[in-house]
Amino acid sequence: MKGFFQLISSADFLELFSRFSALDQETVPVTEALGRVPAGAGITAGEQLPPFSRSTMDGFAVRARDTFGCSESEPALLEIVGEIAMGSAGTAFTLKPGQAVRIWTGGELPKKGDGVVMVEYTHLMDEQTVEICRPVAPGENVIRAGEDFEPDSEILPEKRPLRPQDLGVLSGLGKTELTVHKQPRVGIISTGDELVPPDQPLGPGKIRDINSTTLAALVTEAGGIARCYGIIEDDLERMLAVCEAALQENDILLLSGGSSVGRRDFTLQVLEGLQGSELLAHGVAIRPGKPTLLAARGNRAVFGLPGHVASAMVVFYLFVRPLIRQFSGLGPTLGLQKITALTAEQIPSTIGREEYVRVSLKSGRENDPPLATPVYGRSGLLSPLVRADGLLVIGRDVKGLDKGARAGVLLFP
Amino acid sequence: MKGFFQLISSADFLELFSRFSALDQETVPVTEALGRVPAGAGITAGEQLPPFSRSTMDGFAVRARDTFGCSESEPALLEIVGEIAMGSAGTAFTLKPGQAVRIWTGGELPKKGDGVVMVEYTHLMDEQTVEICRPVAPGENVIRAGEDFEPDSEILPEKRPLRPQDLGVLSGLGKTELTVHKQPRVGIISTGDELVPPDQPLGPGKIRDINSTTLAALVTEAGGIARCYGIIEDDLERMLAVCEAALQENDILLLSGGSSVGRRDFTLQVLEGLQGSELLAHGVAIRPGKPTLLAARGNRAVFGLPGHVASAMVVFYLFVRPLIRQFSGLGPTLGLQKITALTAEQIPSTIGREEYVRVSLKSGRENDPPLATPVYGRSGLLSPLVRADGLLVIGRDVKGLDKGARAGVLLFP
Repeated sequence: MKGFFQLISSADFLELFSRFSALDQETVPVTEALGRVPAGAGITAGEQLPPFSRSTMDGFAVRARDTFGCSESEPALLEIVGEIAMGSAGTAFTLKPGQAVRIWTGGELPKKGDGVVMVEYTHLMDEQTVEICRPVAPGENVIRAGEDFEPDSEILPEKRPLRPQDLGVLSGLGKTELTVHKQPRVGIISTGDELVPPDQPLGPGKIRDINSTTLAALVTEAGGIARCYGIIEDDLERMLAVCEAALQENDILLLSGGSSVGRRDFTLQVLEGLQGSELLAHGVAIRPGKPTLLAARGNRAVFGLPGHVASAMVVFYLFVRPLIRQFSGLGPTLGLQKITALTAEQIPSTIGREEYVRVSLKSGRENDPPLATPVYGRSGLLSPLVRADGLLVIGRDVKGLDKGARAGVLLFP
Repeated sequence: MKGFFQLISSADFLELFSRFSALDQETVPVTEALGRVPAGAGITAGEQLPPFSRSTMDGFAVRARDTFGCSESEPALLEIVGEIAMGSAGTAFTLKPGQAVRIWTGGELPKKGDGVVMVEYTHLMDEQTVEICRPVAPGENVIRAGEDFEPDSEILPEKRPLRPQDLGVLSGLGKTELTVHKQPRVGIISTGDELVPPDQPLGPGKIRDINSTTLAALVTEAGGIARCYGIIEDDLERMLAVCEAALQENDILLLSGGSSVGRRDFTLQVLEGLQGSELLAHGVAIRPGKPTLLAARGNRAVFGLPGHVASAMVVFYLFVRPLIRQFSGLGPTLGLQKITALTAEQIPSTIGREEYVRVSLKSGRENDPPLATPVYGRSGLLSPLVRADGLLVIGRDVKGLDKGARAGVLLFP
């Protein structure tokens, strides 16, 4: 039978992504790089941060040895030779033995200065003389030049989306642009003669297209750039032409339509009919989400998603999102927070396939994980998705979970 | 003493936000509403979803009672009166007793039809006759009109950012625009004669402005719109003029500068010098983050943040982010995932203030929470922030945590 495939596991499905590689690079301003993934070799600091040794306190920069042995009862007397104003060169001063200079938090240390006495442990005798009541060790109350980053140190871990503090580091090192992987472009096509766009009136037997809006938002949430191609009627020629055009303009194509056997066959025909494409998967041993299709053409991927939006969302989170992440320069990971919960009731499941049960969560007893209650409802319904907080995972070798069992829950982002 | 305040707890600090209210409303396309918060009263469906009773299977729509008592050995014989093509009016058919009509998943049921027999449980005798081998109950394999949403049902919970499935529901109900709260505009001003912009060469005693980039990204991450006003020198007149202008254009103003006593006093002078502003807080009993200032003018807020970026980030996550969320139409909540972890080592802390310890997380033993290892480093350093996964919280009445203790960790988003 043409196109006959065995159901594969979700792990095997993700294995198929090894043929895809991260997208090309582009250069973006650091101020617009939140969430992007650096490309190429690790980024090195290139210079020291901080660029000079800085005081972490308001007080007096000293030669530490001049304070050794001093105390409240036997203070050290030092000569004040000046003040290092913020943003001025501390190295304009060179401390001789017995000398101190006023300094503020963040100020550059003077030459030969190697410690800072907090102002609280000093008494001013007159404008030229200060009593030091507590000794400092060399390096005390000082961040030394390069303590944060030395010029050859790698500043960011690989394969992690950039966070605010990462951008701060780059700014601190004078980097204003950054090479990152391009964001995956994801084309979305709905099929079905029964569909009308959300802004059109409903005719008899018609329903509005829900999947395009939902999938586009899921793409945005995952870090991709969504583009909707609207609703294409059940016409193979026309569908192939639109897919061909969309595949030129996108890295991933999502086809979603109804759940009838005819519609699934139609989607399969489309995937097999695309010039140069290779069908990689035809069915996954998960519920919901079994009738998922995957094809590749070069480094581009085409998914045939289940028709019901509840099923399509599960497939999106399990497979499309990881591929968007992989194209973005990350690993093919879910990028979803997974927590442990206790089941609030018994949950049935079938051996031989992984199940993803929509659950709502509420706080458990003190020190207990939260309680997960299934939000049942047929996969054609939307309201259970609105009430759910995430997906409880039941492994393929497990026949249901008892009430009070521990289970992993993938949280919606 | 003017401006003398007692340190307040973080809970009391959040209480101060009760004077601020959510921002005005604006109308946006549903396709651009991801993460936004609906404004006004709850949104009702306005129409039924689905708009008609739909089949959830491929098969035959029947009058259920015509199938009662049938079986493989004693099938019911029904007359096939036609096919309901996808997107056509099922109600064009009215089933008489003994009649059936072909239907596909998602199709509209015919009049008088109240159940669908899956094609697997039928045998075609000829073009006009079908054998039904298994009875269906009324409503079986049917989603009835309005089963998802009735016209007067509230479709979305209040005070939750819109998720992809929420936008799907709105599309399904024909709503293409939505009234949401405006996004908070957040102005960011750095102060300090020692600062230079990231794209400028460093002079002696100068460091690059790290806080502006970091805070702007934190604002974006929290759902606000950031605008940076650059670095303003230590000049009260000039600073007041810039703040006055920025306060016209923003809902929140963030001032950050050095950590010297002089700089803190300067920020306090600015907050007190703004026409019509009221100082609400001057110090919080948290570490880091103690020297935090808050002032209000009408429904606008001005924060004086600690100078070190590591401290400023903690204050941002604990206070600025909740205020952005409140202005956005949510509660003054952190909006951060909080997990339970086990401490990988003893962690000291001081009674009388909450502590927020940067930690990195790694998986614990099977069924155990993850292990949290403190990432120590002075608050002037950035590298610990880059290595940390979140903030471990130690309550104000707790004197340190033993190794292996359970503690809550706020995850960076």
